[in-house]
Amino acid sequence: MGKLYVVGIGPGGLEHMTVKARQVIEESEIIVGYTKYIELIKSLIKGKEIFSTGMMKEEERCRAALRLSKDKVVSIISTGDAGIYGMAGLVLEMRKDEQVEVVPGVTASSAAASVLGAPIMHDSCNISLSDLMTPYELIKKRVEMAAQGDFVITLYNPKSKGRPYYLKESIEIIKRYRKGHTPVAIVKNALREGQKQQLFTLDSFDDSDADMLSVVIIGNSQSFVRNGIFITPRGYKL
Amino acid sequence: MGKLYVVGIGPGGLEHMTVKARQVIEESEIIVGYTKYIELIKSLIKGKEIFSTGMMKEEERCRAALRLSKDKVVSIISTGDAGIYGMAGLVLEMRKDEQVEVVPGVTASSAAASVLGAPIMHDSCNISLSDLMTPYELIKKRVEMAAQGDFVITLYNPKSKGRPYYLKESIEIIKRYRKGHTPVAIVKNALREGQKQQLFTLDSFDDSDADMLSVVIIGNSQSFVRNGIFITPRGYKL
Repeated sequence: MGKLYVVGIGPGGLEHMTVKARQVIEESEIIVGYTKYIELIKSLIKGKEIFSTGMMKEEERCRAALRLSKDKVVSIISTGDAGIYGMAGLVLEMRKDEQVEVVPGVTASSAAASVLGAPIMHDSCNISLSDLMTPYELIKKRVEMAAQGDFVITLYNPKSKGRPYYLKESIEIIKRYRKGHTPVAIVKNALREGQKQQLFTLDSFDDSDADMLSVVIIGNSQSFVRNGIFITPRGYKL
Repeated sequence: MGKLYVVGIGPGGLEHMTVKARQVIEESEIIVGYTKYIELIKSLIKGKEIFSTGMMKEEERCRAALRLSKDKVVSIISTGDAGIYGMAGLVLEMRKDEQVEVVPGVTASSAAASVLGAPIMHDSCNISLSDLMTPYELIKKRVEMAAQGDFVITLYNPKSKGRPYYLKESIEIIKRYRKGHTPVAIVKNALREGQKQQLFTLDSFDDSDADMLSVVIIGNSQSFVRNGIFITPRGYKL
């Protein structure tokens, strides 16, 4: 009798994986994942059978993971949390009667926040700027609603070659509702090799270094930067 | 030379703590935290010096942690992620020249989502219904903006004795923008002792069991429940 674990491996550095995630990966006979994510955990999975595919092959990976899990213990991995823009949804949609368990992890916004200080201490939104499966009009509406509601905003997948202007346009929308000195940060490769963070304000924001390995965090009306540390207070002065 | 780690211990079950969180807690000479959270990790911290206080004593705990970290290695703990409604903000606001490192963890919405299936696969908001430091008018506005933007919504601190109606009122606001069959779940004690989950729709929602140990997750317009599993698809049909 097999089993499929849908595992969030966290930001990528092995130490930020949960104990449970490590245990189930070690217990698994087969590891399924996007080639680059398999690379991140290669020291953990020596000698195991690997099924990896390139980007955009999510359905193929899920189908393989479900099939293999009928009589083997299998882990299908996502970076961050498997339940946030990860593989948990597709696996559970495609599942018939296979035994599946979701193992959560530290999502990219938490990892990036920890590098910056404490930018997400209050109510917050995660918005992906990828329009592969979401109309851009809805993405822009979400950015606007989040800006109006004074949410701290984390933008996932902020910039790719196919849509170079979405990030700039999102920042323009937010500027209609927030002051120019509001802190904005780009964090690339948070808590993994190649980590780099940049601090701006809405007015000084430069999106040159944003890419698909980054997230962008925009503070709320109370956020500030002190000694290079990005902080959102836990409340408002009542 | 001391150091202060601000550690998110995850949902509470030790296995969902990150490897790094365990390492720094083991390395620490002193552990600072809310009495109930100290209890969750007691098997890890035998023999260590403990500084714990009751609820609402956050500033006292931060002050002690910063003072003690001048010449000792100290961990101040939060459940979930220390950077999301946790201790990271207050510590960094109160810090002078102490060495501080934030260690992220699995936040409550990720933990609850993993128990339900995959409800947070698309853009999402976290909103705390606690009005201790946020005006209730702003909380309601956020709920409305999140509902309008078709975000998956996680409500933290959904219900307490002092504000028994906020959760019901929030659900009423969301019903103005979403269909009555939209899935809603209450998850209490996700991934720790006493775990209990309940599935409703917006129309059938019953808040009797919601409390400060629970989160409430409301699906977006695409969310559905199949065989007891709450799923939000990763996109829209374009």
